[in-house]
Amino acid sequence: MELEVINTGSELLLGNVVNTHLSFLGRALFPLGFRISRQIAVPDGEAIRGVLLEAFERSEIVLVTGGLGPTTDDVTREITADLLGMKLLFNAEVMTAIEARFARRGLVVSDRIQRQAMIPNGALILVNPNGTAPGLYFNLQNRESDSAIRHLFLLPGPPRELIPMFNEIVVPILKDILPQSEPAQCRIYRIVGLGESQVEALVGESLLAIKGLELGYCARPGEVELRIIGSASVLDQAEDFILSVLKSNIVSRDQNTLEQVVINQLVNQNKTIAVAESCTGGFLSNRFTNVPGASLVFLEGFVTYANESKIRELQVDVGMIERHGAVSAEVAVAMAEGALRVSGSDYALSTTGIAGPGGGSLEKPVGTVFIALALKQGEPVVERHLFPTDRENFKWLASQAALDLLRRTLSELK
Amino acid sequence: MELEVINTGSELLLGNVVNTHLSFLGRALFPLGFRISRQIAVPDGEAIRGVLLEAFERSEIVLVTGGLGPTTDDVTREITADLLGMKLLFNAEVMTAIEARFARRGLVVSDRIQRQAMIPNGALILVNPNGTAPGLYFNLQNRESDSAIRHLFLLPGPPRELIPMFNEIVVPILKDILPQSEPAQCRIYRIVGLGESQVEALVGESLLAIKGLELGYCARPGEVELRIIGSASVLDQAEDFILSVLKSNIVSRDQNTLEQVVINQLVNQNKTIAVAESCTGGFLSNRFTNVPGASLVFLEGFVTYANESKIRELQVDVGMIERHGAVSAEVAVAMAEGALRVSGSDYALSTTGIAGPGGGSLEKPVGTVFIALALKQGEPVVERHLFPTDRENFKWLASQAALDLLRRTLSELK
Repeated sequence: MELEVINTGSELLLGNVVNTHLSFLGRALFPLGFRISRQIAVPDGEAIRGVLLEAFERSEIVLVTGGLGPTTDDVTREITADLLGMKLLFNAEVMTAIEARFARRGLVVSDRIQRQAMIPNGALILVNPNGTAPGLYFNLQNRESDSAIRHLFLLPGPPRELIPMFNEIVVPILKDILPQSEPAQCRIYRIVGLGESQVEALVGESLLAIKGLELGYCARPGEVELRIIGSASVLDQAEDFILSVLKSNIVSRDQNTLEQVVINQLVNQNKTIAVAESCTGGFLSNRFTNVPGASLVFLEGFVTYANESKIRELQVDVGMIERHGAVSAEVAVAMAEGALRVSGSDYALSTTGIAGPGGGSLEKPVGTVFIALALKQGEPVVERHLFPTDRENFKWLASQAALDLLRRTLSELK
Repeated sequence: MELEVINTGSELLLGNVVNTHLSFLGRALFPLGFRISRQIAVPDGEAIRGVLLEAFERSEIVLVTGGLGPTTDDVTREITADLLGMKLLFNAEVMTAIEARFARRGLVVSDRIQRQAMIPNGALILVNPNGTAPGLYFNLQNRESDSAIRHLFLLPGPPRELIPMFNEIVVPILKDILPQSEPAQCRIYRIVGLGESQVEALVGESLLAIKGLELGYCARPGEVELRIIGSASVLDQAEDFILSVLKSNIVSRDQNTLEQVVINQLVNQNKTIAVAESCTGGFLSNRFTNVPGASLVFLEGFVTYANESKIRELQVDVGMIERHGAVSAEVAVAMAEGALRVSGSDYALSTTGIAGPGGGSLEKPVGTVFIALALKQGEPVVERHLFPTDRENFKWLASQAALDLLRRTLSELK
């Protein structure tokens, strides 16, 4: 069954607003057994007419967002009624609800507002407790026409009206439309330490050979998402293979971020962490503390940007900085060990490197970073990486490498 | 001239990723004189074929994002060549660039990667310094065909590849396509401390009365962008009015971020800063250190998440924490003064609050934050704010308030 989403709104195409409806609807529709085959955004006004006509030809289910408001450029309701040959009739019940809403806020109902109580004859009203414009559902299964359209939903544009209306009213209707025996599942593996092409080289061919499996990749800076869709049994078969090949590079199977995974590991192992950052400038601490409950295991962070600060806060030896430079394996280890000692934590991560754009040398070009992990029990580990990119991406990739060093260490110690 | 955007990527329709390309392109195209008449998102794979064909019929300019990668679901390049009747030819120069990129990172080039060096015969290569897949531009003005398409751009999907490629290579081509005699200018004012509707109430009516001026607002968390479009003389007139009304709330007139503005102030005044963070967890230090050259003025940051850490690193009095709680004006000031003393900086900012989801109380609900600024010369300043939102947005808003407190103080002292 083809399902299509149409988003109306000039602000989407001018770029003033990001289209979050699409990601909301995509995620909400999948577990019901629906995939969006196409999404279209058009400006407010007449542009919706042609797009609706095309969609009616192609798709059995069409979801439209926006254009139900009171202003002159909100014409989705009128154009839909026109295309379906339906009359707009004044609905007293809808008008009463609108008036009650305005009265609660001490506002006067203008003439414009009345348009929202004009309902196409044959549409089902989807009540909107969070706004004035009701949604509309058109069941067109008995309509005499050659076009594909069977179910049409007109939904309000504001997310705080759309989301509850969809969850509470539209979902039950969709479940009636497509009762599911065995809904398709989607599993997503978050992978670090390998590029997209490396992941595909390792697992692609074998996965494509599994019948009934749909495969997708999404590359992000410093990580790759591998997505498989199919029945539970097919996914189990694929998962066995994926785990056997990519095992130590798989960060999560549940869309958990790397920082969530690491915090969970620390909580489960009842261990604490401290952070000493130079080049990542607070970003590594920030990723730890983005996770709700981080305070259980994250003791403190030191953003020791200046050398004096490394010496004073982390007890790094002045002579060591002079001999090896602040960007060196030796100083990275000394920073991590200093943070461990000062904070009394079980683990401490450190970063020192050259974020750029200035400060590089032949031996240590822009993008060079040393990452160290100090342990209360055991020898420190230090890694050297090169991320020659812009400043913010450098911070992301360096923090990614640091978090992954901790993740791998905690996995082994488990 | 009709301009259409096609975004490929199953992850968009599954809702795993929000389509930020559309808003980026919409905003970037406008000042060039283009408006997006339609945007379509389709899954990876064959679906792009039909959509491309339709777009070719309708629009003179088509921008496609995604589907240029190395994996089997990336087929935009191949299908486009097929539709335009072009052969794919191996391009040694592109391959050399890809190999150099891989060599720099110590990676091996797989067979799959070679696909990205297959270039449709007749396409112009748009170099991609931030990824392996080059973009492609097809100038179809001399093509014998009844379809509308004249200019086709295939652009990489990852934002950090797409955005610089668009700004540096595509914009000049688009300027050639649509030379503007008197290009409309666009000025954007970044405003903090006022909501969107407050800004509109203060300046909206008067600005709308200026003939030839187009007006727009964009609300972001913790800031508002006021956008005016028109000829230079009209903009000057509008600007005089805007500055006279919003003066102290305008952070920048050049799209500089708040952190850039503050770093510039510190550099110009030859002053240094230190940061003591609790609830912002490194995010405030991170914003400072995102600015190239921050090391000139940013001495160090303390992410003192645990109370012990506040006491040890910042010399906050134990009794004060017991009496007032860690989230209090008193502790905020003590943290800032501690950071100032320890680091020897000229200014020190601190944050302490309740990011949530847990930890709130009746007196100090989730979202409460105290922000303090300590000065080497002068009395400390402390502010209380309430940002009841999710954790990451809370950190953003709290850091925004802290940076703005510093900005206002530095403006007054100047």
